[in-house]
Amino acid sequence: MTATRIDDLPLRDELRGKFPYGAPQLDVPVRLNTNENPYPLPDALVARIAERVTEAARHLNRYPDRDAVELREKLAGYLTRTTGHPVGRAQVWAANGSNEILQQLLQAFGGPGRQAIGFEPSYSMHALIARGTGTGWLSGPRGEDFTIDAPAARQAIAAHRPHVVFVCSPNNPTGTAVDAATVLALYDAAQAARPEGGGALVVVDEAYTEFSHHPSLLPLLAGRPNLVISRTMSKAFGAAGLRLGYLAADPAVVDAVQLVRLPYHLSAVTQATALAALEHTDTLLGYVAQLKAERDRLVTELRALGCRVTDSDANFVQFGRFEEADGGARGAWRALLDRGVLVRDNGVPGWLRVTAGTPEENDAFLDAVRELMKAINERRNA
Amino acid sequence: MTATRIDDLPLRDELRGKFPYGAPQLDVPVRLNTNENPYPLPDALVARIAERVTEAARHLNRYPDRDAVELREKLAGYLTRTTGHPVGRAQVWAANGSNEILQQLLQAFGGPGRQAIGFEPSYSMHALIARGTGTGWLSGPRGEDFTIDAPAARQAIAAHRPHVVFVCSPNNPTGTAVDAATVLALYDAAQAARPEGGGALVVVDEAYTEFSHHPSLLPLLAGRPNLVISRTMSKAFGAAGLRLGYLAADPAVVDAVQLVRLPYHLSAVTQATALAALEHTDTLLGYVAQLKAERDRLVTELRALGCRVTDSDANFVQFGRFEEADGGARGAWRALLDRGVLVRDNGVPGWLRVTAGTPEENDAFLDAVRELMKAINERRNA
Repeated sequence: MTATRIDDLPLRDELRGKFPYGAPQLDVPVRLNTNENPYPLPDALVARIAERVTEAARHLNRYPDRDAVELREKLAGYLTRTTGHPVGRAQVWAANGSNEILQQLLQAFGGPGRQAIGFEPSYSMHALIARGTGTGWLSGPRGEDFTIDAPAARQAIAAHRPHVVFVCSPNNPTGTAVDAATVLALYDAAQAARPEGGGALVVVDEAYTEFSHHPSLLPLLAGRPNLVISRTMSKAFGAAGLRLGYLAADPAVVDAVQLVRLPYHLSAVTQATALAALEHTDTLLGYVAQLKAERDRLVTELRALGCRVTDSDANFVQFGRFEEADGGARGAWRALLDRGVLVRDNGVPGWLRVTAGTPEENDAFLDAVRELMKAINERRNA
Repeated sequence: MTATRIDDLPLRDELRGKFPYGAPQLDVPVRLNTNENPYPLPDALVARIAERVTEAARHLNRYPDRDAVELREKLAGYLTRTTGHPVGRAQVWAANGSNEILQQLLQAFGGPGRQAIGFEPSYSMHALIARGTGTGWLSGPRGEDFTIDAPAARQAIAAHRPHVVFVCSPNNPTGTAVDAATVLALYDAAQAARPEGGGALVVVDEAYTEFSHHPSLLPLLAGRPNLVISRTMSKAFGAAGLRLGYLAADPAVVDAVQLVRLPYHLSAVTQATALAALEHTDTLLGYVAQLKAERDRLVTELRALGCRVTDSDANFVQFGRFEEADGGARGAWRALLDRGVLVRDNGVPGWLRVTAGTPEENDAFLDAVRELMKAINERRNA
């Protein structure tokens, strides 16, 4: 009997020949490729998670709180405290990672016959989740310096009239923050382009905002019912393994995603673990402060080594440019891996992305880059 | 400032005027409305969950195992042991509840321009997940006794040529098991109806199979690459709060869902908790044996009280018929609630569904039905 191949199945045509999303999970000494927070949760928090999960496990035969009321209340409190903008439970929704948040938004506001736009290079899951929800995808422009050129972006919105606009700030993989004026310009352009049917949804993906030099864009929510701020506990809360994403928006948006969310989507153990982590917010934000300092050090030292570096407001840094004559981004990625350091090749020609790790990990990375640059210079001068 | 209403937003047209799925979560003494397992997890398992989650929490800053390798290995072992049919890790996939399993299947094999069929009344999430993924929905027939009439079902498949066929066995909300011959007839009809493009996917939803008088349909997988068996830990494992669904199918199907799954969809705490529960399989299946006996008692005693009862292979029982002249299903639901017992009104005219609870809960339910039937009879004879 021969094995069935995926193409033998009644798979959708647009999925044929595609590959699953995901960075290589390689076992190397220094892994700086997936923007994880390098600091394990403190022991006191691990103990508190065990307590809270034990309590939840005693009732695990029952469905979880379908509306995650306590968790949304606490997330709203965190947003209010850290942005100064009052946010209530009714404005917050939570899901299994911000990917699921974005999927629910596209199911409700995108989907078949509708289009979403993002300004690329950006978080590639935006386009993939669009594909997974049957939403058409439009690739909007970015400037040479990886910022969003507001006039060009507005022009693209006016021309294509997308139903959903993604703005990633700080942007992954470039680290670029987007200012409030640009977001407002895109929001107004998106509404103007779709005067009927309720306008267009603008989703600001703030997965990395806690690492930014600039304040959150969340206060822009006031008076803008089609604006959504997406967040995650994966980065600032050091909890990538938890898969807890959330959004803040007008309560009507929260009502809307409940029309498409899978009932009881958020497990009791996830809710319990997230609540425990939120109790330790101050400790975790202390790690964020350390990581911001390390991120700034990476930018400075990479430039000193002769790299070009994109200004970063995230917990990672985009660096380059590795010309094709020097082996390109792929060659540099391989050279760093050979030195025990795994970074990310995001497919931006000539550029790589490195996550800010612990001081020791960053030192190891910088040593590897130093050797790489030396080798490149020697080859050029040979 | 007036509040934004959901209809002011750029919501998809087909979602306008709809309501979120979900049974009322009412605080009453006896809750038998959501097919939960009434037995809390044993203390030893709760302790083991705390141990496993503590270990996972120490690495929570890292992304979870994207492919859930250990969990799929253990789920495959469970299926092999309980069905006698050898299943390997490559044939198993896991997600946040079987709802997410079904959503991923519809994203890969259904979606815009494609149709799915189910034989109704059945699990209403099948139709809702179809809607959420842009898949057209076809309502197939069931007989008066709630079984699937194979010739009529085959005719519907031949006429509509669906891309995905749902068979729920045991069926929710009726409790009806589907025999292997019927599934094979539908499988063959579905393939014959779509001779090009790889045939049609047939999904057998076995969420309740551990409670059945009949063996699992899983051995039918052999030689049928378009057949999928969907399962959950919510019912037999007493872990509705965990949200762990899984499927068994040809490895090519597992490859296919990875094209649409959100990366890292299954949190490290969910994987850890599920692994702990699987270590306690024998204890949990002991509860299943008790629940099967209670389910059979409910069937017998309800019939003795003068109710019509659909043969049940699940952990719930469909009973009726409550004629409109007697207040209908809604009136009976309300009367039972007034007596402190919450059951489910699934919208099947004249019928209600009750979950098998503990012996004490079932006694309370039967007492309430006794009073209800007495009141109905007195009114009829008045």
